[in-house]
This record gives sequence, structure tokens and C-alpha cells, in this order.
Amino acid sequence: MALTLETFLFISIFLFSFSSPFTSAQNHPLDPLTPTEFIQIQAIIKQSQTDLNHNLTFQYVGLDEPNKQTVLSWHSSNQTTQLPPRQAFVVTRIKKQTHETIVDLSTSSILSSRVYTGSGYPLFTSEEQEIAADILPFKYPPFIKSIRRRKLKLEEVVCSDYTVGWFGERKNNKRELKIRCFYLDGTVNLYVRPIEGLILVVDIDEMKITKYYDRFIVPVPKVDGIEYRSSKQKPPFGPSVHAVTIAQPDGPGFKIDGHTIRWANWNFHLGFDVRAGPIISLASIYDAEKDELRRVLYRGYVSEMFVPYMDPTEEWYQKTPFDSGEFGFGLSAVALEPMTDCPANAVFMDGYVTGQDGKPIQYSNVFCVFEKYAGDIMWRHTELAIPNRVITEVRPEVTLVVRMVSTVGNYDYIVDWEFKLSGSIKVGIGLTGVLEVKGAPYTHTDQIKEDAYGTLLADYTIGTHHDHFFTYHLDLDIDGDQNSFVKSKLETKRITDHSSLRKSYWTVVKETAKTESDAKIKLGLKPAEFAVVNPNKKTSVGNNVGYRLIPGLITSPLLSDDDYPQIRAAFTNYNIMVTPYNKSEKWAGGVYEDRSRGDDTLVTWSARNRNIENKDIVLWYTLGFRHVPCQEDFPVMPTLSSGFELRPTNFFSSNPVLKTRIPKPVHWPNCTST
Amino acid sequence: MALTLETFLFISIFLFSFSSPFTSAQNHPLDPLTPTEFIQIQAIIKQSQTDLNHNLTFQYVGLDEPNKQTVLSWHSSNQTTQLPPRQAFVVTRIKKQTHETIVDLSTSSILSSRVYTGSGYPLFTSEEQEIAADILPFKYPPFIKSIRRRKLKLEEVVCSDYTVGWFGERKNNKRELKIRCFYLDGTVNLYVRPIEGLILVVDIDEMKITKYYDRFIVPVPKVDGIEYRSSKQKPPFGPSVHAVTIAQPDGPGFKIDGHTIRWANWNFHLGFDVRAGPIISLASIYDAEKDELRRVLYRGYVSEMFVPYMDPTEEWYQKTPFDSGEFGFGLSAVALEPMTDCPANAVFMDGYVTGQDGKPIQYSNVFCVFEKYAGDIMWRHTELAIPNRVITEVRPEVTLVVRMVSTVGNYDYIVDWEFKLSGSIKVGIGLTGVLEVKGAPYTHTDQIKEDAYGTLLADYTIGTHHDHFFTYHLDLDIDGDQNSFVKSKLETKRITDHSSLRKSYWTVVKETAKTESDAKIKLGLKPAEFAVVNPNKKTSVGNNVGYRLIPGLITSPLLSDDDYPQIRAAFTNYNIMVTPYNKSEKWAGGVYEDRSRGDDTLVTWSARNRNIENKDIVLWYTLGFRHVPCQEDFPVMPTLSSGFELRPTNFFSSNPVLKTRIPKPVHWPNCTST
Repeated sequence: MALTLETFLFISIFLFSFSSPFTSAQNHPLDPLTPTEFIQIQAIIKQSQTDLNHNLTFQYVGLDEPNKQTVLSWHSSNQTTQLPPRQAFVVTRIKKQTHETIVDLSTSSILSSRVYTGSGYPLFTSEEQEIAADILPFKYPPFIKSIRRRKLKLEEVVCSDYTVGWFGERKNNKRELKIRCFYLDGTVNLYVRPIEGLILVVDIDEMKITKYYDRFIVPVPKVDGIEYRSSKQKPPFGPSVHAVTIAQPDGPGFKIDGHTIRWANWNFHLGFDVRAGPIISLASIYDAEKDELRRVLYRGYVSEMFVPYMDPTEEWYQKTPFDSGEFGFGLSAVALEPMTDCPANAVFMDGYVTGQDGKPIQYSNVFCVFEKYAGDIMWRHTELAIPNRVITEVRPEVTLVVRMVSTVGNYDYIVDWEFKLSGSIKVGIGLTGVLEVKGAPYTHTDQIKEDAYGTLLADYTIGTHHDHFFTYHLDLDIDGDQNSFVKSKLETKRITDHSSLRKSYWTVVKETAKTESDAKIKLGLKPAEFAVVNPNKKTSVGNNVGYRLIPGLITSPLLSDDDYPQIRAAFTNYNIMVTPYNKSEKWAGGVYEDRSRGDDTLVTWSARNRNIENKDIVLWYTLGFRHVPCQEDFPVMPTLSSGFELRPTNFFSSNPVLKTRIPKPVHWPNCTST
Repeated sequence: MALTLETFLFISIFLFSFSSPFTSAQNHPLDPLTPTEFIQIQAIIKQSQTDLNHNLTFQYVGLDEPNKQTVLSWHSSNQTTQLPPRQAFVVTRIKKQTHETIVDLSTSSILSSRVYTGSGYPLFTSEEQEIAADILPFKYPPFIKSIRRRKLKLEEVVCSDYTVGWFGERKNNKRELKIRCFYLDGTVNLYVRPIEGLILVVDIDEMKITKYYDRFIVPVPKVDGIEYRSSKQKPPFGPSVHAVTIAQPDGPGFKIDGHTIRWANWNFHLGFDVRAGPIISLASIYDAEKDELRRVLYRGYVSEMFVPYMDPTEEWYQKTPFDSGEFGFGLSAVALEPMTDCPANAVFMDGYVTGQDGKPIQYSNVFCVFEKYAGDIMWRHTELAIPNRVITEVRPEVTLVVRMVSTVGNYDYIVDWEFKLSGSIKVGIGLTGVLEVKGAPYTHTDQIKEDAYGTLLADYTIGTHHDHFFTYHLDLDIDGDQNSFVKSKLETKRITDHSSLRKSYWTVVKETAKTESDAKIKLGLKPAEFAVVNPNKKTSVGNNVGYRLIPGLITSPLLSDDDYPQIRAAFTNYNIMVTPYNKSEKWAGGVYEDRSRGDDTLVTWSARNRNIENKDIVLWYTLGFRHVPCQEDFPVMPTLSSGFELRPTNFFSSNPVLKTRIPKPVHWPNCTST
């Protein structure tokens, strides 16, 4: 959607009439790499290249963050000590080999360099995907012939790329992408117009088509009713609602200092990574009673995503992408639209990635930050028990949201990190965008005689069954980094000694996980609550300070354990896992996810069964959505949301928002809609 | 909270500067009884009383709604046919007997009358509770002596009443309340200052104290840090946020016609009942494609609540209240505060209950209705796959919320019914207010050597473990009243014939419940989705139109099945049950819940195992919260929320909000905060 002049004027007013939330940027050791740094890295890597005849591509360039203890001591010095040296982790491809390089930016030197020879490949670059999908097929005569044979116009064909996974091959695989194509012909909603039966396979290192299949023809689903652009809709429109906005006459209440965001009692760092998207670091909350900023979350981000489709047929069986490790959750981020993706009071931030040539590319509006007021109640009580008195106290709920939207092909993922005054961090995921559909020769369910692997959504259109698993890396540091993971099992106790007229009650049996195997949890099997606590810090009445995880949708994989996609995604087998902190254990599916074999995942690391009691530990939480598509999801799907909450439990000695006052009332009779 | 002048002015501006959402009230057969009708009922019942020497109390007076088919045919006639006769269901107590009377208001006559002789008693009246808790103890010398012995000031003692349940007694029980007392002495937060060891039992029909226990003395928990009134807090305040509001320059977009609310594509009736609180009826949604208002929910409300505490000791074992059937979820509703309980754009509605004398009492601001805009995204997509084009379409999410807050003693329950343009109905429950705590001789967890049945929250203060179960009556009528309940089981299929490189996938196996026993579901045991469908209506591609239930927190009771509270609350044993519609099956725990024996519940009705396929069916859903209290919940608890969603599934033939346009932008530079 292009900005209208009005919207632009509005934003201008907004930005200039209030004090800006941006303050002069102070550097932080966890700041993402800057454009200048990307250029410096590019130069260092290129300089080190001995054979200039070979193409060099940058597959991943990101901050190699300093050791945690270095960051923590810098942070606890009130950020007055010298910044640790800036280093970058760089993955390049040269001569069909994966190179891992650590670059030191302070000395403009290479600290280490190696050729990675294990299984799996790095992220695909945007350019690789573009050439493979947008150029190669259209120069490939058999493909052109197939399109003509279907009586389709070549100029209306658009292709998209899919990773191919690993299915037990023993030999080293090639870097490949599978190409599926779609037929626009009057629409932009390509994903619901697949040209089935055609598959191209591209060798990405050679950048050429190596396999081609034209197996069958089914009708391209109809073009009617799939348009989603407002400008192309015809009346009647609707359903429609009155104008509505969130107004903050005094402007936003947060400050952005470089990448550090301060709001009310919260203080955290917001980084952007081409693979992870948003990274929340060093989230701390001010405890008024202790007059102290207390540490909660050293680092939180989406470590991996797994989206297995449930169609085992030739064209579809491989569709089990790892959206983060293969396509880059950050690389797939899109520019947020003011006033629609984020409310009127939002402030936007940019991010940077590199092209495959190593040059920085700006991602405008990659994040928005805003204060959310949904009309909810933070706490309340009406007291009617005292004769002749009515006491009512209510505090409305205002929270701070950091949002990114990542569009991995057809799907749009809305990623929210929400900070509450009461100490909770709520993490939300919304799924919207366009379904991945399959062309099929059906116009009515009566015609379907065998498993169609999905729902018939419209003529010739099957919405294929699939799941979405999101595995979060949550390095909680509750009041310090020596923490434990505690299961509070809720157990029924029978009363058999006639000491009570009750026959039963439940009580809490706490169990501290000693090693990694004690902390592998499939949720929903037994009633329990789960917390990360600091076993060395107690409240004055003796409870261990902690944060508990309140899960969202409870979903476990249904693929068999020996199925190849599930071997690679074995990190989703448990909803909760806990590991001791290890700087190298960042990506639940391994550093090299494309064509990975599951030999470097959260599951293999934790097989060592390390000690996790009173250690610096990381909580890994997997949130899953099952998706049995329905007709309402077509041609774009209304957002389906879930998430989870990290909620303080005996962290504060009492309700930390007890003394929060009602925000100043706002008068808005002069607001106008246009 | 008293309204400040500013707030008052604000509200005045709001109410008078825009067109009012209220239109002239048209009568509706499901309208709650009016004050005039209450007075008429009181007169009819009193007139019929033969022996005027005996006290008559009104325990329940509510609309005896017309037969469903009568209402439906009135509704489908475009509300032009004559209204069915108005009738009331009245429960009175006379001479220690429960009388059930059906009153016809059109003829001012009694249609039927009987003495109820089964187990269980009706709702307690406010007056009964007030006399039992506020008057009797203070005239009872042994109690006064006990207070003096504890060196407490009698004028600072406040008492509260608790139901006593049923624990296997064979003889008919009396109507009793247990009285526990609290010590204010400088605070209004009585519930965290229990005077333990003292229990009074009041015979409510005799209205006298029949049993008295003074068993032990433990310190009353401290008064420091328990104040929650803003006016009594001392600085430093906080955490604090900037002024924020929701602004609708064109005013609300809904219309309230009597009790019928019309907003965007939704149309429903909002009733108020002294027992259930809000009742949503005849919710229908406009389908633009069919140009038709389509039926979704005939009736939805909280049928019962069950709050078992997990302390089996003498003073606590009975605490297993049924907040709806014993105390009245509507009777316990409180006046919503403008600007804090509900946002600035909310509109308020009143309700009416009767006193025990039968006279109407106005409940001001018992509901608020508002359009919610939380900055969320209804749907979006960014299309990057088409070379040289970027297409972004985003629709912000605006919904309609109906809210009530019911304060049953210490707890405040926030009840939200939220209607989405996309067809979903989201039902939310928020728990806030004050914990029920137990005085105990501990100041540190180290001193606790046996099960304390809760968490030590502060000196001498145990927050007792408990659950909250909410059982919803959801009479879905998907495009008519002949519906079926369908389980879509997600089953793993193994591939053993080498037809695919995949070894497994999951698929959907649908199973229509034939009888009630097929539809008793404990959630979380097996992967499945659940829907109510119309087996007689298909979309053009052949899917049955339906709505599915997306559950919230998945919680099952942990009390043993043979424990008396659980026998009474056996309706919580399954998260889902389905029954054929039966006008008399309204209250999951039975009409007479106080001291009930579980012999007239959802479980006993469904034991008949009636046919539910292609019938008018009712879905019963039980949402549970477990509560292991933590120190943050003290002295008032930040809201803990969950809920569930009824989401259309193949109800619409495609996304019903595809053609929704972005609401008009709002300019708010002139808004001011004060």
C-alpha cells in the first residue's frame, strides 16, 4: 500500500510535534552490525580471498557477540567501561565450499577461518532465490514448452523456490532448490494459482537447472474471488467499522537510545539478525521496592521454525521448510505499514542485511515499537464486604509491543514481544498471508475418493494440512545467571485417615531438574507448572525468585520419529528443553539447516545430558500450530494467533504494579477523521 | 473510584457530541425482566400467598424464556409477529420450603407452582448474606469474647460468608452459611487479614447462629504493604505510563436497540440474568456473498463456576464454592468504572435484579460495550515473488467487546464476549482481585514442615492452592438448529510401501458424534479439532458449514471422582460435552446448587446418552485455571487471562473480511491530556 499524502502528513505531524523517542545513540556490544561495518567486513573478506577467479557469496553476516560474561560486566559497569572488540561471524560460499570466518573489526583482521565440511548448507541469499525462480526457468526450453502445452501465457507465469530437505541420502547432497510455478493472469495472488505437475530443480552452486519434471496437468484454480488488493475490489465493501485510533497526546512514553529501549520499568536491547529477526537482550525490570534494575532475560529470539506439509506425493513430500535456517526470518522481514501494521502511536526502526556481494541493504520499518492499550484491565477490585462502603480501584493495562512481520513466501508471520508493567513478557505469533495450496481435479468433495491431504477450499484448490512449530531460545537470567529449572507437579493427594470430610486435594511437588534429561517436557501429559528460578536468591519469606512459562497452544509433532523431516526437526519433539548456556548453541536445528541431517541440533547437544542445576541455563520452548485449512483461510487468511507468557513468580515480593496510577485522562473532542 | 469533574465533563462531551448508539427500544422476547415487570411479579406472588404470617423471600426471579421455536419464528418473521407472552421463573422461600412458580405477566396469573423437595437450595440473597455476615456475629457474645481475647477491636472486624457444600450427609441439610472474619484495623483489604480459628455457622432460614468454633489463634497477617487504594499510596508511585486513549471521532459504530446490538456484520441480543450475568442470544452474522443474516449462536453464557480450594483442614475443607449457582454471577456484578474498566469509547448499560422482597434494584453500568482496537492485524500479505513489484495489503483488526465484571467476594472476574468481523466469537475470562488467604504461624518457608496447602506470600499469609472452572453453555445453531458435533482426529499415517520418500504424515479422520457419550472429551489427550456443523448445509464445494472451538487453557479436575465437591462438580470432568437442546437444562450443576448432591447436573442428564446427531444441540465447554499463588498476586493480583474462540470453519465460502477496507484515518494532533 502506498502512503497517501494524508497519511504522510499525519506521520510528519506525529514525528515533529512531540519530543522524539529517539535519543543520541550510545553503542552497545550487542548492537547489530552497521552498514559501515558490513562494508568493512566485505573488504576484509575480499582482501583475504586468494583466488579471485571464483565467485564469492555472503550467505550470512552477523554479529559474533562477545562472550556473555564480557557483555554482563560491561553492562553492570553502568556501560562505562570500554566496549569489547566488535567481531562478525561470516559464512561465505567459494568454489562450492562453505567458509566460516570470524572477522575482528577493531583490528580489521581475520581471527579464524575454516572450511565447513559437515552436512548442511547455510541460508540461501535473496539473489540465489531470485535467479533460481525468476530467471532460469524462463530460459529453459522444456519449461517454456510445458507452459505452452498448457496454453498458458509465459509472461503471466511466476515461480517460487522451495528447499528440498534430506531424505536419507548417504552421499553429500548438492545445494538445490525446487521451483514451483504459478499463473497470475490477472491476479497477484499467485500462491492460490499453482501450475501443478511441473517441477524444476536448480543446482544453486552451478546455478543451473539439473532436473525437470512435467508429470501431469490439472486445471489452474480459478481467478475469481482471489483478489485481495483493496484498489481492485468492487462494491459492496465491508464489513466496515468506524474510524478508530490510539491517541497519546504527550507522545510515546518510551525512549530509544541506539538499540536500547527504555519504557516504564523495562529496559532492553533490540537487535536485528538476518536469520533470527528480532533479538531481545538484557531485558531487565526496575524493582521499586529494592530500587534496583533486576535481570530477567539475557536473550530471547526465534531460534528455528519448522513447517511440515502433510502431502507425501512426489511434488509435495519435500515441503518441510525450516523458515529461519533456510530462508532467514530476518531476511524475510517486510517493511511495516504505518497505521495498519502498527497503530498510529508506533515508532519505526530500520534494520540492515547484506546482499550476497556483502554490501549492506537497508530494511526500512523492519520493527515498530508502540504502547498498546486494548481497553484491558491490569488489576481491579471492588470491595463490597465492608458495611456501608463501596471501594473500587481499577488500573487499565498499557503494555509495550515490539513487532516484526516476516513474509516467508506465502505466509506472513507477525512476531510480537510484549512487555507488561507487571513483569510479564508475552510473546505472540500471528499467522496470516496466503495458504500454500495444491491444484487438484476436484470441484466438490464428493469427487474425492482418497486422501486429498487437505481441504477443498475452492474449485481445483486443496489447502494442504500442515503444522507451524516455533522454537524459542529463552536465555533467562533471573537475578543473575546461576539459575535452575523447577517443575511444580500438581499431584492429587487422597485422604484416607478420616482427618477431613474431603477425600482429596491437589498439592505442589517441586522437582529441580538436575540434568538435561530431567527437563525434556511434552506439555499436557501431566499437570505441572514450569519455572526458571534463582536458587541462590530468596524473597524475605523464603521463596525462590523466578519466572514461570505459561504455554500457548500445546502441540506435539505427529510425524514418526524416524521420518527424515522429523529427524532434522527433532528439537520439536519436546515442548520444553533446558540446556546449559553455550555460546555456540544458538540455532536449534544447527548452523547449517538446509539439507541438514539432524546431527547438530538441540537434541544432539542435550544428549550429553549435562548438569543444569544452579547453572547458567537456556530454556527452549516450542510453540506449535496445527493447520487444517478451511474456506475462510482463502484467498488470504484471517490472522490465527497464539503465544506464551513469561510471568514473574515470587520474583517480586508483592504485586509490582500496586502503586501504578491511572494514566492521565485524555480529552479528544477535537480529534477528526477524514 | 469517584468520578472527577474532568472525567464527568469528558463523559458528557462524549455522550452528547456524537450520535447516541442507543435507538428507541424495541421489545424482544428474550429481554430481561424490567423493573415494572419485577414489581408486577412481586405483587402476583404476594397475592397468592395464603399465610401472611410467614416471611417470603425471593431467591431468584428471571425471565422464563419462551420456547426456542417460538423465539425463532418471531425472529425469522423479521420481528413483526406478536411477541410471545412474557413469563417469569420465580424461586421463593416460605416456611423453610423452596417454591418454584411460573408467572404469566400478560395475564397477571400464576401458570404453575410447586414446592421443590429435592436436594439443594437456591441462590442466597444479598440480604441473607448481609445479615449473616454483618449483623449476627456482632450480637453473639461468644464471638465478641473471642475477638476480645485476641486483643482485637470489634469495630474493625468485618465478616464474610461461605457456602458449606455437601459431604455425604444422608439427612436433609439446612440452609447454612459459614462465617469467617477479617481484621481491618487501618486497611480495607480485608481478605488478606483473616482471623483464623474462628468459625460461625448460621442457619439461614432461622437466621441464627447454630454453631460456633474458636479453635486456635494465629497472628493476623501484617497490615503493611496491603493497601491498594490509590488515594492512600505514598510516593514513589509507578511504574507509570504516558496518557493514552482510544479515540473514535465519529463515535461508536454500533447501535443498541433495547437489548439488541448491531455492529458491522454482527447482530445479537444481550440479556442480563441474576445468576448467569450476561447472556448472548441469537447472534447472527451477515454474509455479504449470500446477502443473508446467518445464525451462529442461539444462546451463550456462563452456566456454572466451580472454585475448589485445596486445603482439607477443618476451617477450609468446605471452600469449594459454585460462584454462579450459590452467589449469582449476575448478582455479584459490579458497576463498571468509565475510563478504567472500559476504554473511553465504551457505552454502558444497566441491569436489574430483585431484592429478597421482590423489588427491583438497578445495577448501573453492569455492562460496557466498546470497539476494541489493540493495534492488531486482521489479515495482511506482502507479495515479493512477482519480479519488480511489491504488493502489501494490511487490514487492522477492530472488534466489538461486551464486558461485565463480577466480584464474588474477594475475586473479580472480567467476562468478555468479543465479536470479530471475521466471524469469530472470542470469550475471555480475566481473574483479578484479592486472593483468599489463610493465616498461618509462618514468616519463612523454612518453618513449614508439612503441607501448607499453598504459598507463603507474606508473614503469616498462605495463598491457598485452588482452581477456577467455568462451564459455558453454548447453544450453537449453525445456519439453523439441526446440527452435529464433529471430531476431526489428526492421525499419523505410516508410509510403508515406498511410494514416497516420506515415512509419515498426518491426516484428518472425521467422526460425527451419534450420542452424548461420543462427545465427552477430555482435551489434550489426543490431537483433534472439534466443530459444530450443519450436516444439512454444504458450501458449493461440499464442506459442511460449521464453527470450531479453539480451547484456551486445558485443565482437568484433580480431585478424586468420589470426593463430594467433585461429585457435585462432575460436569467439569470433561472439557467438552454435547447434549440435545432441552429448555430445562440450563444450569450445569443443577437449578439448586447450594448443598446440591450432584443428582441434577449435566452429567446426570447426559447419562441418558441421547441422540445428538443432526439435532438441536448444545455444546458445553469447561475452561479451567489452576492457581498456585505467587507473591505477585498479593495484595491484589494482576489479571490472569484465558478464554476460547468459536471460529467459523467452512461456514463462509471464503474469507469474509477480504473486502473490508481500512477504517478512515484519524487526525489527533488536537487531543490534549490533562
